[in-house]
Amino acid sequence: DQVRALAREIAMREIEKHAADGIGRVDYAVASGGGRVVHHSVPYEPKRGIFSGLLGGGNPDPQKMIQPSFGEPGQCFAVQGSSGFVEIKLKSGIIPEAVTLEHVSKDVAYDRSTAPKDCRVSGWYDETSGETQSSHAAKMAALAEFTYDLDKNNIQTFDVTAPDVGVINMIRLDFTSNHGSSLLTCIYRLRVHGREPVSPGTAGFRA
Amino acid sequence: DQVRALAREIAMREIEKHAADGIGRVDYAVASGGGRVVHHSVPYEPKRGIFSGLLGGGNPDPQKMIQPSFGEPGQCFAVQGSSGFVEIKLKSGIIPEAVTLEHVSKDVAYDRSTAPKDCRVSGWYDETSGETQSSHAAKMAALAEFTYDLDKNNIQTFDVTAPDVGVINMIRLDFTSNHGSSLLTCIYRLRVHGREPVSPGTAGFRA
Amino acid sequence: DQVRALAREIAMREIEKHAADGIGRVDYAVASGGGRVVHHSVPYEPKRGIFSGLLGGGNPDPQKMIQPSFGEPGQCFAVQGSSGFVEIKLKSGIIPEAVTLEHVSKDVAYDRSTAPKDCRVSGWYDETSGETQSSHAAKMAALAEFTYDLDKNNIQTFDVTAPDVGVINMIRLDFTSNHGSSLLTCIYRLRVHGREPVSPGTAGFRA
Ligand SMILES: [K+]
Ligand SMILES: [K+]
Ligand SMILES: [K+]
Repeated sequence: DQVRALAREIAMREIEKHAADGIGRVDYAVASGGGRVVHHSVPYEPKRGIFSGLLGGGNPDPQKMIQPSFGEPGQCFAVQGSSGFVEIKLKSGIIPEAVTLEHVSKDVAYDRSTAPKDCRVSGWYDETSGETQSSHAAKMAALAEFTYDLDKNNIQTFDVTAPDVGVINMIRLDFTSNHGSSLLTCIYRLRVHGREPVSPGTAGFRA
Repeated sequence: DQVRALAREIAMREIEKHAADGIGRVDYAVASGGGRVVHHSVPYEPKRGIFSGLLGGGNPDPQKMIQPSFGEPGQCFAVQGSSGFVEIKLKSGIIPEAVTLEHVSKDVAYDRSTAPKDCRVSGWYDETSGETQSSHAAKMAALAEFTYDLDKNNIQTFDVTAPDVGVINMIRLDFTSNHGSSLLTCIYRLRVHGREPVSPGTAGFRA
Repeated sequence: DQVRALAREIAMREIEKHAADGIGRVDYAVASGGGRVVHHSVPYEPKRGIFSGLLGGGNPDPQKMIQPSFGEPGQCFAVQGSSGFVEIKLKSGIIPEAVTLEHVSKDVAYDRSTAPKDCRVSGWYDETSGETQSSHAAKMAALAEFTYDLDKNNIQTFDVTAPDVGVINMIRLDFTSNHGSSLLTCIYRLRVHGREPVSPGTAGFRA
C-alpha cells in the first residue's frame, strides 16, 4: 500500500546516494578523477613479526587515501606517529566548499586508535601546473579546522569556514593528534568538494 | 511496530539488489565472468597539461567498460569524438533479452557532456570461438536502438526489441552522438542480459 | 511526516551495515587486514576453448577468497572437484565466535552448482608465527559444521559451537560436497569473527 511505496522510494533514494561513491558529492581529490598525493610526512612501514598482526598497519602507498575503501580495514595510507601531514594536487582549480575525512567503520575496525583527531586543512594555488587561472588564491589559506569524532558516522564532512579564498588546486591536511596510537595514524580517505570557476577560458569547452 | 518491520524488510530487499552488482541481473559481458572487449574505435588519450584536469578523460583501457565503476568518476573507457563503437565477446552464447548502459552518477560527475546519447546495439554469433551451437544467429541483427537520458537514473536498461534473433555470443554498440563533448565519449559500463540456450550439448554439464 | 522519517532512518541504518563490508562485522581473515591463505587443495585451472565460457571457472588466486567480491561473478578461488580444503592464517590470535561463508548472489550467478555445501571449520594456534600467546589452543579443534544453503541469503554466518577452544590464529575449511558441479568448487569469501584476548602483553598497546 502507500506505506510500502513510500518506504521503497526512500530506501532507493538513500541507496542511490550510497552508490554514488558513498555520499553523492563531487570529489576533486579522487585518484580516478585526476587527483594525486604529492607530499606527505614519513610513511609507517609495518613491522613483520610480533607487532604486524596486533597493530594492523595500513598501507605505505599514499594514493590509497584518495581511493575508495569499500568498508575494508587496511585500505588506508599510514604515516608514522600521532601527527603529520599530506598534500594533494586536485584534479583542477576549484572554489573550495567542504572537505570529507573518512576512517574505517567501527563495525569492521580492529582498532580505531589510529584515526586522526585534531585537523587543519589549508589550500593554495600552484601555478607550476601549467594551468592559468585568473582570480586564484594569492597564498596558502586556512580552510577549516575540525576534530574527527569516533562517535559519529565514519564519513564526516566539514564546511570551509574561510571566506573568499579564491581558486585553489592544492590542499594540505595537518593533523596534530590521533585517537591514541603512538605508532601510526591511518588516513582512509580525504575528499575535497567545491565548485569550478566559470571563466572565459574554460566555459567554451564545457558548453 | 509494523511500519518499522515493513520499512526494514523493504530496505533490506533493495540493498540486496544493490549488492548484487547494482541491479541484480545476470551480465554475460562482465570481465570477471569471461567477457572481453575485442574491437573499438580510436581511444581518447588524455593530454597532460592544461586540458588534463579540465576535461577528465577517462581511461584508455577498453576492459574498464565491462568492469564495475563503484560510483567513481574516470572508471570508464574513453573513445575519441562524439561517435564510435565497441564490440564485446560474451562469456557464452545466449538468447539476448536486454542491454544496460551506465554512466557515472550525476551526483559525483565533473562533466556529463561525455555520456553517449543515441545508441544502436547489434548482435551476432562468432563461430571462430571454438564453440558449436545449433540455432545460433545467422547474421548480425539489430537488437535495440535507444537514447541514453541524462535526466534518468544513471543505470539504464533497454529491452531487445528484435524478435527471434537466435543465439549470439558477440555484441556491438554504435553511438552516433553524445551529450555535448566534441573531444571524447566515455563508456562506463555496458551489460548484456539474456538466457542460456538449453541444448543437449550443454545440459549434461549443468545438471 | 513520521513514517517518512522512520523509513529513512531504517534505510540509512541498513545501508551503513551494508557499507561496512556487507555485514558490519569484524573479519580477522580479510587480506587487507593481514590475513593470508597459506594452504589449499588443487586449484581449478580454467580450460580455454569450448568449456571456458560454459563453466565459468573462477580464479586460480587463493587470496581472492579473503577479498570482497562486490557482487561480481568469478571473484572467487576455484578448486578442483566437489571436495577440498583451504587454510588461512589470521591477522592475529582471537577467540573464535563465528565464520561467514559467501557465494555469489543468485541474482547475478551464471551457475550455482559450484557453491560449497557440507562444510567443517577447524582452528588451531600456530606458534611458528613469532607471536607468543598464553592460553592459546593446545591443538586443532573442530569449530563448526554446517551446510551452505542456496535458498538463503548468499552471505551466511555460522556460530562456533565448540566450547572453550582458546586462542587460535589458523583456520581450516574442509568441504566434503558442493551443489552439483563435478569439476570445480568456488569459494567467494570466508570470514572469521571473534574477539581479541585481553592480555598484559597487548593491552598496553591498545589503551
Ligand atoms: K582508501
Ligand atoms: K567501469
Ligand atoms: K572474493
